[in-house]
Amino acid sequence: MNETLGVLKSHRSIRRYLDVPVADALLDEIIAAAQAAPTSINAQGVSLVVVRDRERRARIAELAGGQPWIAQAPVFIAFVMDYYKTGLAGRNAGRPQQVHESLEGFLAGVLDVGIAMGNAMAAAESLGLGIVPIGGIRAHPREMIALLELPEWTFPVAGLVVGHPADRSRQKPRMDVRAFCHEETYRRDALPPRLEEYDRTMAAYLKEIGRQKEVDWSTATAAFYDRVYFPDVMAAAREQGFKLDK
Amino acid sequence: MNETLGVLKSHRSIRRYLDVPVADALLDEIIAAAQAAPTSINAQGVSLVVVRDRERRARIAELAGGQPWIAQAPVFIAFVMDYYKTGLAGRNAGRPQQVHESLEGFLAGVLDVGIAMGNAMAAAESLGLGIVPIGGIRAHPREMIALLELPEWTFPVAGLVVGHPADRSRQKPRMDVRAFCHEETYRRDALPPRLEEYDRTMAAYLKEIGRQKEVDWSTATAAFYDRVYFPDVMAAAREQGFKLDK
Repeated sequence: MNETLGVLKSHRSIRRYLDVPVADALLDEIIAAAQAAPTSINAQGVSLVVVRDRERRARIAELAGGQPWIAQAPVFIAFVMDYYKTGLAGRNAGRPQQVHESLEGFLAGVLDVGIAMGNAMAAAESLGLGIVPIGGIRAHPREMIALLELPEWTFPVAGLVVGHPADRSRQKPRMDVRAFCHEETYRRDALPPRLEEYDRTMAAYLKEIGRQKEVDWSTATAAFYDRVYFPDVMAAAREQGFKLDK
Repeated sequence: MNETLGVLKSHRSIRRYLDVPVADALLDEIIAAAQAAPTSINAQGVSLVVVRDRERRARIAELAGGQPWIAQAPVFIAFVMDYYKTGLAGRNAGRPQQVHESLEGFLAGVLDVGIAMGNAMAAAESLGLGIVPIGGIRAHPREMIALLELPEWTFPVAGLVVGHPADRSRQKPRMDVRAFCHEETYRRDALPPRLEEYDRTMAAYLKEIGRQKEVDWSTATAAFYDRVYFPDVMAAAREQGFKLDK
């Protein structure tokens, strides 16, 4: 196994950080790795906003529903889907942009953000830094958009906390690979026994780390997914110019 | 710079492959790296379908709009957003799943697919394999869903071709980092001069590789984005049970 595989396979999220800055040279490597990711039709429709200002981070921690690690770690990177930038291409070329009004455009944009974020996480972890991805950037999307001064046709998809870890949490167990990877066609039958087994694994793990209230994977997942837990995303996306009517 | 950063920063897409299989041990590493990626609320709502069957790959090459490298390389991995799997959690826990009906759910699912895909690409490239991501999996989404036998509440987001490269294409130039990464807030003013400069860079690059018909970045991007180039995504997503009305 090579170093890269080692980094990728030992990912874990860190929620306690030292009060130590991240050197510019390290941050530059993370950004370069994110930018080296491929994008659909080479649109490069991803943008980052790096937040180091302490007050701004404290505000983001609040907006994300009270996540103190955002205020504690020295760097927060907002990963933004950016059809504003590509809209300028349309204007330059005299062919007004349409794609951002479609679900296909939304999907392609979010996908590219995810790929870039995967790269950024791997880069940070390879440098011995800790990270935790933050979906809570979408808890109050309008406020995040205002705080980061995001233009029309952009959307804050997710955030990444970066810092020097104060602990090394245990890696969360994954499902049996047969519930993740299928051969040739999707096999529904593969799922029930693996999910049952994973529920037992997670029950033991949650007990070990003192979070037995969450019970197991099925219970914890269902407790989030029986509703839309960030209910303002659709309205905020529409306000940003994503019509999503085609 | 460490090995991982070297791998991430030297990414390029490969569109010519040797007729040599990918060893199971290598494929297993790629799959393990993808599965080690974090997922929102640990839902693990990503699934892969690995296609090695020659005829099935030929069919996918066709459905993706005629991409011969899908038929040529020995492995194609479909990256699937999977709310069917999490729907079973809802059923197990007696709390029926709702999140898949929302744009937030769609976004979170696609994002996790992107992160997993970033990991898979880095893993493959670290092993000396070539890859190219395939958005064309969405050109005829209904046919892809049927071919892979995907259940309700799942969607084929993107594909990944994996094989032994027959050439090493040049790395595509990226924009100036100031058009990618902002500090504290998004600066619109940073874009126009960088995009102009990038148009010149890409014009020279496209000429060098014999694709001067595409002119430059603005022209090439606008030629894709002045329409919805995979127009069936919305309808197919609705048919898969993604209502997207909240």
